[in-house]
Amino acid sequence: MSGTLYGIGLGPGDPELMTLKAYRLISGAEVVAYPALEDGESFARSIAADVIPEDAAEITIHIPMTVERDPAQAAYDQGAADIAVHLDAGRDVVVLCEGDPFFYGSFMYLFARLSGKYETEVVPGVTSVTTCAAVSGRPLTARNEVLTIIPGPLEETAMRDRIAVAEAVVIMKVGRHLPKIRRVLSALNLTNAAYIERASLPNQKVMALDDAPETAPYFSMILVTKGQDPWLN
Amino acid sequence: MSGTLYGIGLGPGDPELMTLKAYRLISGAEVVAYPALEDGESFARSIAADVIPEDAAEITIHIPMTVERDPAQAAYDQGAADIAVHLDAGRDVVVLCEGDPFFYGSFMYLFARLSGKYETEVVPGVTSVTTCAAVSGRPLTARNEVLTIIPGPLEETAMRDRIAVAEAVVIMKVGRHLPKIRRVLSALNLTNAAYIERASLPNQKVMALDDAPETAPYFSMILVTKGQDPWLN
Repeated sequence: MSGTLYGIGLGPGDPELMTLKAYRLISGAEVVAYPALEDGESFARSIAADVIPEDAAEITIHIPMTVERDPAQAAYDQGAADIAVHLDAGRDVVVLCEGDPFFYGSFMYLFARLSGKYETEVVPGVTSVTTCAAVSGRPLTARNEVLTIIPGPLEETAMRDRIAVAEAVVIMKVGRHLPKIRRVLSALNLTNAAYIERASLPNQKVMALDDAPETAPYFSMILVTKGQDPWLN
Repeated sequence: MSGTLYGIGLGPGDPELMTLKAYRLISGAEVVAYPALEDGESFARSIAADVIPEDAAEITIHIPMTVERDPAQAAYDQGAADIAVHLDAGRDVVVLCEGDPFFYGSFMYLFARLSGKYETEVVPGVTSVTTCAAVSGRPLTARNEVLTIIPGPLEETAMRDRIAVAEAVVIMKVGRHLPKIRRVLSALNLTNAAYIERASLPNQKVMALDDAPETAPYFSMILVTKGQDPWLN
């Protein structure tokens, strides 16, 4: 009998924001797998570090950070093959995912390769989206408001068009796209935006976008709420 | 010294999808508060039922389900006053919130009334959005895809316009709006939608929208993914 593949959302970074289910599955894991940068650093593993059993086997999937996609796809091929060895031997494999596995997560590339052959369960996690709202004290959406979530790399015109018609906007993965985002928000007269860096981590920063640094890390977000429910004010 | 107000996201319904932080704060609570229907039924309380200490004081905020907003606002006024009595006496108050407190949650109405006067902390929770993706095995968004989250009550033309330009769409609070949503998706030729009812609960249902019942409960959602990353297929 084959093992089960678990894709486990760990939440935004504070280990206490993982779910009870994530905690149970990781603390009982025989095999854990996780993505890592080429130098071996893994944000996902760092979130779960205190929960991973000492004797668990670990599979590191080194994801090359290149614009071309083939090298990353080859890394997922290799990771899926390494995971499949354990599943075939009847061992469950727990894949650690920062945030939520199906929300801009690398787990989906493993899911696409393995879920057709092995029993697979996805455990959702707290996303950085609601975490940013929580730590900045800004309610995200009420009643009939539409929430639009936009990745920072989106092309400038497309980004402007989407934000123009949205009530509440969260821009993810800001990083080097910050100057472009500032231009878009300024052109739309949206001056009341919040900038959040590494939400829920000890080095978290929360400030008005006007006060944000010129260069932002990858794990930073911008939150814009426009159509505020008058009952909230 | 006043107590601290905590708005705590409990996740989508499965008690195991609450965070470790929610568990810690609720299990140590002196006072818990939660919204309930007029008959006293509280989804939020039911999620946390096994964690609430037996000797905790409980504040029930009965929210009238009317189209007019004044009765609900009066209920939040009363709830905020009941909570303030404990905060003034130096006791922390834990407000139980289904899903995430700042994501279409009633907590924001208490937050608007109390956060200016009392220390307040919002603990994010797993939303039904990523839970629906997890239980239906459909990755939500990859790379530069935009995610649009739409409340079911949104007017038909606005709904169509938003969905027409979106890559991935989640429609929340479907309920009696299902026929309208079917019309919109059909007009846009979006036939590949999933219908999810009570995600993560024992009576959860997941099916193609075409197979969905004529009448949907309030806690049902529709998931449409259009611009699929070719690397996921």
